Amino acid sequence: MNTFGTRLKFTSFGESHGVGIGCVIDGMPAGVKFDEDFLQSELDKRKGGTRFSTPRKESDKAQVLSGVFQGYTTGHPIAIMVFNENAHSKDYDNIKDLFRPAHADFTYFYKYGLRDHRGGGRSSARESIARVTGGAVCAMLLNEFGICAQSGVFAVGSLVSNLKEDEFDFDFAKKSEIFCLDPKLEQDFKNEILNARNSKDSVGAAVFTRVSGMPIGLGEVLYDKLDSKLAHALMGINAVKAVEIGEGINASKLRGFENNDALKDGKFLSNHSGGILGGISNGDDLLLKTYFKPTPSIFIKQKSMDKLGNNLEFELKGRHDPCVGVRGSVVVNAMVRLVLADCLLLNASANLKNLKNVYYYQNYFKK
Amino acid sequence: MNTFGTRLKFTSFGESHGVGIGCVIDGMPAGVKFDEDFLQSELDKRKGGTRFSTPRKESDKAQVLSGVFQGYTTGHPIAIMVFNENAHSKDYDNIKDLFRPAHADFTYFYKYGLRDHRGGGRSSARESIARVTGGAVCAMLLNEFGICAQSGVFAVGSLVSNLKEDEFDFDFAKKSEIFCLDPKLEQDFKNEILNARNSKDSVGAAVFTRVSGMPIGLGEVLYDKLDSKLAHALMGINAVKAVEIGEGINASKLRGFENNDALKDGKFLSNHSGGILGGISNGDDLLLKTYFKPTPSIFIKQKSMDKLGNNLEFELKGRHDPCVGVRGSVVVNAMVRLVLADCLLLNASANLKNLKNVYYYQNYFKK
Amino acid sequence: MNTFGTRLKFTSFGESHGVGIGCVIDGMPAGVKFDEDFLQSELDKRKGGTRFSTPRKESDKAQVLSGVFQGYTTGHPIAIMVFNENAHSKDYDNIKDLFRPAHADFTYFYKYGLRDHRGGGRSSARESIARVTGGAVCAMLLNEFGICAQSGVFAVGSLVSNLKEDEFDFDFAKKSEIFCLDPKLEQDFKNEILNARNSKDSVGAAVFTRVSGMPIGLGEVLYDKLDSKLAHALMGINAVKAVEIGEGINASKLRGFENNDALKDGKFLSNHSGGILGGISNGDDLLLKTYFKPTPSIFIKQKSMDKLGNNLEFELKGRHDPCVGVRGSVVVNAMVRLVLADCLLLNASANLKNLKNVYYYQNYFKK
Amino acid sequence: MNTFGTRLKFTSFGESHGVGIGCVIDGMPAGVKFDEDFLQSELDKRKGGTRFSTPRKESDKAQVLSGVFQGYTTGHPIAIMVFNENAHSKDYDNIKDLFRPAHADFTYFYKYGLRDHRGGGRSSARESIARVTGGAVCAMLLNEFGICAQSGVFAVGSLVSNLKEDEFDFDFAKKSEIFCLDPKLEQDFKNEILNARNSKDSVGAAVFTRVSGMPIGLGEVLYDKLDSKLAHALMGINAVKAVEIGEGINASKLRGFENNDALKDGKFLSNHSGGILGGISNGDDLLLKTYFKPTPSIFIKQKSMDKLGNNLEFELKGRHDPCVGVRGSVVVNAMVRLVLADCLLLNASANLKNLKNVYYYQNYFKK
Repeated sequence: MNTFGTRLKFTSFGESHGVGIGCVIDGMPAGVKFDEDFLQSELDKRKGGTRFSTPRKESDKAQVLSGVFQGYTTGHPIAIMVFNENAHSKDYDNIKDLFRPAHADFTYFYKYGLRDHRGGGRSSARESIARVTGGAVCAMLLNEFGICAQSGVFAVGSLVSNLKEDEFDFDFAKKSEIFCLDPKLEQDFKNEILNARNSKDSVGAAVFTRVSGMPIGLGEVLYDKLDSKLAHALMGINAVKAVEIGEGINASKLRGFENNDALKDGKFLSNHSGGILGGISNGDDLLLKTYFKPTPSIFIKQKSMDKLGNNLEFELKGRHDPCVGVRGSVVVNAMVRLVLADCLLLNASANLKNLKNVYYYQNYFKK
Repeated sequence: MNTFGTRLKFTSFGESHGVGIGCVIDGMPAGVKFDEDFLQSELDKRKGGTRFSTPRKESDKAQVLSGVFQGYTTGHPIAIMVFNENAHSKDYDNIKDLFRPAHADFTYFYKYGLRDHRGGGRSSARESIARVTGGAVCAMLLNEFGICAQSGVFAVGSLVSNLKEDEFDFDFAKKSEIFCLDPKLEQDFKNEILNARNSKDSVGAAVFTRVSGMPIGLGEVLYDKLDSKLAHALMGINAVKAVEIGEGINASKLRGFENNDALKDGKFLSNHSGGILGGISNGDDLLLKTYFKPTPSIFIKQKSMDKLGNNLEFELKGRHDPCVGVRGSVVVNAMVRLVLADCLLLNASANLKNLKNVYYYQNYFKK
Repeated sequence: MNTFGTRLKFTSFGESHGVGIGCVIDGMPAGVKFDEDFLQSELDKRKGGTRFSTPRKESDKAQVLSGVFQGYTTGHPIAIMVFNENAHSKDYDNIKDLFRPAHADFTYFYKYGLRDHRGGGRSSARESIARVTGGAVCAMLLNEFGICAQSGVFAVGSLVSNLKEDEFDFDFAKKSEIFCLDPKLEQDFKNEILNARNSKDSVGAAVFTRVSGMPIGLGEVLYDKLDSKLAHALMGINAVKAVEIGEGINASKLRGFENNDALKDGKFLSNHSGGILGGISNGDDLLLKTYFKPTPSIFIKQKSMDKLGNNLEFELKGRHDPCVGVRGSVVVNAMVRLVLADCLLLNASANLKNLKNVYYYQNYFKK
Repeated sequence: MNTFGTRLKFTSFGESHGVGIGCVIDGMPAGVKFDEDFLQSELDKRKGGTRFSTPRKESDKAQVLSGVFQGYTTGHPIAIMVFNENAHSKDYDNIKDLFRPAHADFTYFYKYGLRDHRGGGRSSARESIARVTGGAVCAMLLNEFGICAQSGVFAVGSLVSNLKEDEFDFDFAKKSEIFCLDPKLEQDFKNEILNARNSKDSVGAAVFTRVSGMPIGLGEVLYDKLDSKLAHALMGINAVKAVEIGEGINASKLRGFENNDALKDGKFLSNHSGGILGGISNGDDLLLKTYFKPTPSIFIKQKSMDKLGNNLEFELKGRHDPCVGVRGSVVVNAMVRLVLADCLLLNASANLKNLKNVYYYQNYFKK
């Protein structure tokens, strides 16, 4: 359904062409400084408006509806909403009764018996406003523990950066219009995207994420492993078709001695594992790769069928990203933060000593 | 924690060298024919004993403890247990205080403050007995709907089958000691595994899964998408480092027009999506790839540290698979079944017409 | 936390003196006719404004933010919000640092380390706007199945109606300013409430609920029994201190032969059970009693302490119900509806035949 | 379904006349000393065998299947099982096709389409073995925090003790065959029970529970309030029809000034609230009352119907408690412990200071 997380519950609502997109974050500890400017800056990163994304232009201004008092979280649900401003629902009139290829139209119609065709309704990439909002609020908590997640683009279409993972330039990516991790390839990536757009087509991309400052112990083993939760979070982003952790697919090609991360002087000598052992963070950086298919919305004429089963050809209208992976990079980062904040809270009761530390503080009044 | 699934709740318990491994499956509808022979045959597939797996030999006989009455499921929790018979706990005495590289030893110790060192305790691959048991019970339900999941190995180390996805030979895989999907490569795969074993080393592998007979409508959109749930399930298997759905990583290299699956005469003309649109099954076959790292347990001397932070070198004893991906193929299939059974149950209340169909039957007595 | 329900997830947010009170209802099946007028009429029942409730006056107008399209539910989250209009936060300045007796002030402060003192923040009875909203939306679904929940007041303070349960007059209660179930006692109840108010005091009350049109089979046995879920829902309403089902406390005083409901001609000959057997609805009417303590906010001078532990005496300002049980009756009914809608959805996968009925419909396209 | 708890997940399985009754406790922190003797002593309290309970005699010996290593909990699931020894399934042959009044037979059959008639199958009071096991394990954790729950019987049928709550004698109850809290009434209670049994009938009873050593802060507010969770837990016990917290029903008869608990010198001057304010424990003792209907199994001839809808009269065989509330007292106590342990774990992440205390400890290695 529309809730994510176990102890930190994030619930999303709203449609692309409805009143707006919102979310409720429940379980956030009380006492975390709430930084509205940071929240807005994250939403601004996600927002369209460059040549490399959708031309739909809105202010995407976050309104905090609850859960913050005098600048701090209260421990109660934080609801935040972005109202829609610039929906062009008429652009979708011609697809009301047909199923756009590679979109959710077909499956939503058959699952629910009806569908909101305006901008994809609930299945729109605009829902990621909620995800980015949630991720930004989680970052305020992670910050208190020195945990920092960063994401950027390392491949567009068949162009893949050959930098090593520790050579990716996150400072450059922050300033890049396409969040590019490889300064030398930025222009090529841009050309590839514009080329796709000019051909009325779209193109795929790939995102790399590094989380530094990881504590040991995050992840709940077996069926709530940190890697499970990350894969769940990332594969659930619209258009994502593959996820790798640490060495990823390449690990399947290695021998054990090559792939095992030895320990010396209290440190791991390599990080093939991507910072996770047995589903629990080992203190090393998390290393993740997320792969996006090309945007399904293209302007080339396509074959499809309508609700009555008639074959037809059609051309899309509307405003779409030529490379959904670019803005996807912001969403990836948000989802990683949501996972980590949840794990942080879950871990608080892992063992008796931890738990006793909690209660020493909370009951000072009684003592 | 140790429960998987939303509506069909599967809970696993037990340790490698404890009393045994068990599970509880809660939420299974009443009235499903229970096939104990099939359950045992699935456990037998998972069991070691060939040259290509661990030499640990046990009968791995399933005992049904509850939830089945006169050959049918009752709608109540089905508990099933396999008692351990052949644990050699002494093999692990020498690693009691040290952290084996690429294992969960390090993280379990720091998360919990103590650890069961015998065979990895809870982090052992032996826990997959519970997964395979759960998957087999789910298959009994899926069977009623004509849904069939099959998995096999398409790569070992750097050897990757170049067959197309619809050329993989599941009939061959069923009879192959290493569940190999490519008859021409089986001998090469075997040699690669034995070669790794003879070098006291191990090797990675990759598993392909196809699910046929899929209904439209499975998956709960947004944060419980079918692809999210599959990624969660597969990435949570010990040693898995990457998951691809449909076109996977390759989708990120394509243009939209190439990747979009057009519709004609009520059918999709291609299946780049891997059978999932918008997080919901579209009726086409599910196509999944799962990548396993090499078994972390190798017999080459390795560097590590102990609980006190001292550096040391050590050699492992014990009995281990040279290629964990081979038996992993059985576990992959089980997890896919667990996901699909859960989605089937969740979907029952997706729309009002479905729901009314349910109640028409159930209350025939009152009418 | 702030979510209620298993398959139908209701999440509430907002504070008494914040932006407003809202909720998200997730899991509602698609295709249910959405009746905004009915929703508003339920909120109007809950709203203050008579001599028997708080003088705080607001329009309490519901705004649907998502999940409804062309008059029907879409299967996606339904978010609804009521914006606050008439908060007098200054009334609470004098209690900022002290703990009002019988309120949540003390416990919220020690649990969270800070508290929103304005009108009780999150612990305010104003949060029941969210509950009533959720209950109204659930009623739209229950309606489709002929399930009808009704609640009214049968006791105020020490005045208790001696009508039998089937003599309670729900039609009268609907028109009564205090939802009174016993026409002969209405004036006495009103006098008792005004008497308490005139003494700067408050008074308790008790609510009776009947649900007719119940199907057989609602409730999930053992740890999600229908009676468990109802008790959870009702005891969680602010100020509720006791819940009885069917014969209630009186059952503990009976012999088995008196209390057992015999069956004849396909009907139960009595309804001591209150419509629930083994945690599952038996098709008879549900019968529930809910008991409210007197409103903790009174205008008599009281003893308490402040955050620093100093003793003090104080007098409350603000606007408060003299008998919280009166409007509580509306909230009771809402919570019962939330429970029943959840059970209806959960039950859809109870047995294989039900499940097959679902899929017959959903996949007509494939056939 | 069959799982109870949010952060501490307790799952129960097994049938009255199946292999046995078991449970899995997941989420228990690592490092809690495991006391098998205490566990067995709790099961012995629950066990039948006196004149006042069922004559069914079994050893009810607990077998720990997982989750304990070298005398301490490991943080992994603790599975415990009691194997059945003395099931007389033939006693139930005559009720195979009929519905016993006040039992779950009718509803289980219509919900699931089939039922295990032997001893009630899953709906048997024997399932409470799992509850008592879970409660005992939770007590081991609560013990570490000085939290102690005690329960006993204060009413049998129409005989109700008139002792005040702080006069109830828990030391006496511990030694009493019927867990009687009022030494002067013990013989009368016993006579009432034997009287019912001799009339082939049964009788109701009521249980009082006090929890001392409560910390401030347990309970998750709004929809997971401590009182909600307790009501859920207690109303879900077989045969319970009413629950009161603190002043209970009597609170509905009081004025606010009488009922409000004033504060002085850091203490509450009374405890009408029963130790809970705003759904959170306030540090005072919890006070709970739980009311049991008479055992539905009686030996007087009763009217009922069979699966085909035929009217019939029948007499029960089998072995049954004449007063299910007596042993119910042990189950009440267990459920209270399960709730409190869950709340203890959930509370660990309530605020940022708590959370920081946790991480200071856990990452000492990294520092």
